[in-house]
Amino acid sequence: MILTVTLNTALDLTYDVPKLVPHTSHRVGDISERPGGKGLNVARVLSALGHETTVTGFAGGSTGAVLRELLAGTSPDGSAPTGAPAPGTAPAPITDALVTVAGNTRRTIAVVDRASGDTTQLNEPGPLVTADEWTAFLGRYEELLAGADAVALCGSLPPGIHVGAYAELVRPARAAGVPVLLDTSGEPLRRGIAARPDLIKPNAEELAQLTGSRDPLRATRDARRRGAHGVIASLGPDGVLAVTPDGIWQARPPAKVLGNPTGAGDSAVAGLLSGLVEGLGWPDRLRRAVALSTATVLAPTAGDFDRAAYEELLSRVVIEEHAPAA
Amino acid sequence: MILTVTLNTALDLTYDVPKLVPHTSHRVGDISERPGGKGLNVARVLSALGHETTVTGFAGGSTGAVLRELLAGTSPDGSAPTGAPAPGTAPAPITDALVTVAGNTRRTIAVVDRASGDTTQLNEPGPLVTADEWTAFLGRYEELLAGADAVALCGSLPPGIHVGAYAELVRPARAAGVPVLLDTSGEPLRRGIAARPDLIKPNAEELAQLTGSRDPLRATRDARRRGAHGVIASLGPDGVLAVTPDGIWQARPPAKVLGNPTGAGDSAVAGLLSGLVEGLGWPDRLRRAVALSTATVLAPTAGDFDRAAYEELLSRVVIEEHAPAA
Repeated sequence: MILTVTLNTALDLTYDVPKLVPHTSHRVGDISERPGGKGLNVARVLSALGHETTVTGFAGGSTGAVLRELLAGTSPDGSAPTGAPAPGTAPAPITDALVTVAGNTRRTIAVVDRASGDTTQLNEPGPLVTADEWTAFLGRYEELLAGADAVALCGSLPPGIHVGAYAELVRPARAAGVPVLLDTSGEPLRRGIAARPDLIKPNAEELAQLTGSRDPLRATRDARRRGAHGVIASLGPDGVLAVTPDGIWQARPPAKVLGNPTGAGDSAVAGLLSGLVEGLGWPDRLRRAVALSTATVLAPTAGDFDRAAYEELLSRVVIEEHAPAA
Repeated sequence: MILTVTLNTALDLTYDVPKLVPHTSHRVGDISERPGGKGLNVARVLSALGHETTVTGFAGGSTGAVLRELLAGTSPDGSAPTGAPAPGTAPAPITDALVTVAGNTRRTIAVVDRASGDTTQLNEPGPLVTADEWTAFLGRYEELLAGADAVALCGSLPPGIHVGAYAELVRPARAAGVPVLLDTSGEPLRRGIAARPDLIKPNAEELAQLTGSRDPLRATRDARRRGAHGVIASLGPDGVLAVTPDGIWQARPPAKVLGNPTGAGDSAVAGLLSGLVEGLGWPDRLRRAVALSTATVLAPTAGDFDRAAYEELLSRVVIEEHAPAA
């Protein structure tokens, strides 16, 4: 089982409008609602790849209830997992191990202009999480770690959670020998890295914010010195740069693609984790990460991936090994 | 008891943002949620004026559940009414007689720019109402009419409701001798008028759309010929023009005011109905309508009214009686 942690889950709404014009009134056409927050997006891709996944974090209020209902519908039969199918063959169950909080799970609204596809994003703040709710979560998390092959810690922190929270979650994973990937930004990333996660997956902006350098190789090495064992820097259309204890690789998509990059980073995380638990080497994990994130940009619905494109891209991702000079 | 009908209720969300910029991402600051749709707004003002009010229409899904919870919280003690206090003295109970539907009650989102107060509106479509749900509503409506002193039919029609629906609701009210006010627009207004409601309350735009004339007096008289016994045309900062079987009046606020006009029309409806059931004459009903709508423009929260301003304005509304030339 792969465990994903989303402390600040969201009910993601997408509104279709002809064109957003400030200070006017709009009739929304199509509405879509789905469970959101980075760890839930990662879980959806892992499920599609055939990996049994458990999601934890917080959900509460009426929006949290809708999120959990939709999450149950994402699972192939809506029931508890009874054993994963062979990876890659069929969607695997997603188990809901979210901790209930008193506050309302936040909504995010993506307002999409019909013709251009341009998106305006409105993100509610998360619910205030109390000290007791955090303690309840820590207990649940440690129980879940016992059955996890890998864990991903994903996204922003809701109000009430201390900025060093990710360090507090990296440590027990390391102690239990469960590989841990941290995908966040800003101060939570800076503090989390100090607890020495196995992997981080910053984008160029997050990496520059962390290290002060916009040179990907220099910034990536700096991030390793700060505590991350491996750094997978996502460079958008240029693919990923992986600086790991085993070597340095760059993996690129075969060609530039146009589309919506929303969720591409979460698909890359799913690619990395699935390759890790299947025992693949770095080049194959990176191939999977780049093919999945490229296939996500290509999919018509934000955050989904185009399976045919993914399978076709897998063999065409360009991998370059760099000399491991320090 | 005053009955208000809101076929297309809404969960009204207000988002506070620094400034809405299309195609960028926004962190929402304050969020407010409240029960919406014109008839619910009218009921809230009636309750504040001390009038026992019952709301009906449709509510469904998770958003409908939140709406009903918030509505229960609006009522002073959250319980069923046990007898209205003397009008004007204390808030009176609002009784929830909404009919449950399978679909989700729509959300509306008002995105308010913090500094300027400029508002961008996003309105979801309503739920599809089935023929069985409409039939259930008609039964409930006829029962409620039996105990009503007046009824207001308010707002747009959700998908699935036929465009002549308001005519179907005006007729039994007329037959039961319950004064009926229709506040809608477009084709539902045109069809509804033909069933001869006691009052309609169009704004200048709705009146022009109905009659083809932008001259308020001519358009108002035309609207009467189409079937409305009385027409109260709301003319924004110029107050209201009332063309009734008893005479013609113009009522104006004492001075122009700046503020948010959202909900001013609903407050005017509440003023008219409260004055009607209290047996006031037209000049006093119009005074109340204009003072309430002006006090609504002045209130910091959209749709609320400033009670001190309302009480102060009541004596200062300027009433002019016109010669009843046809």
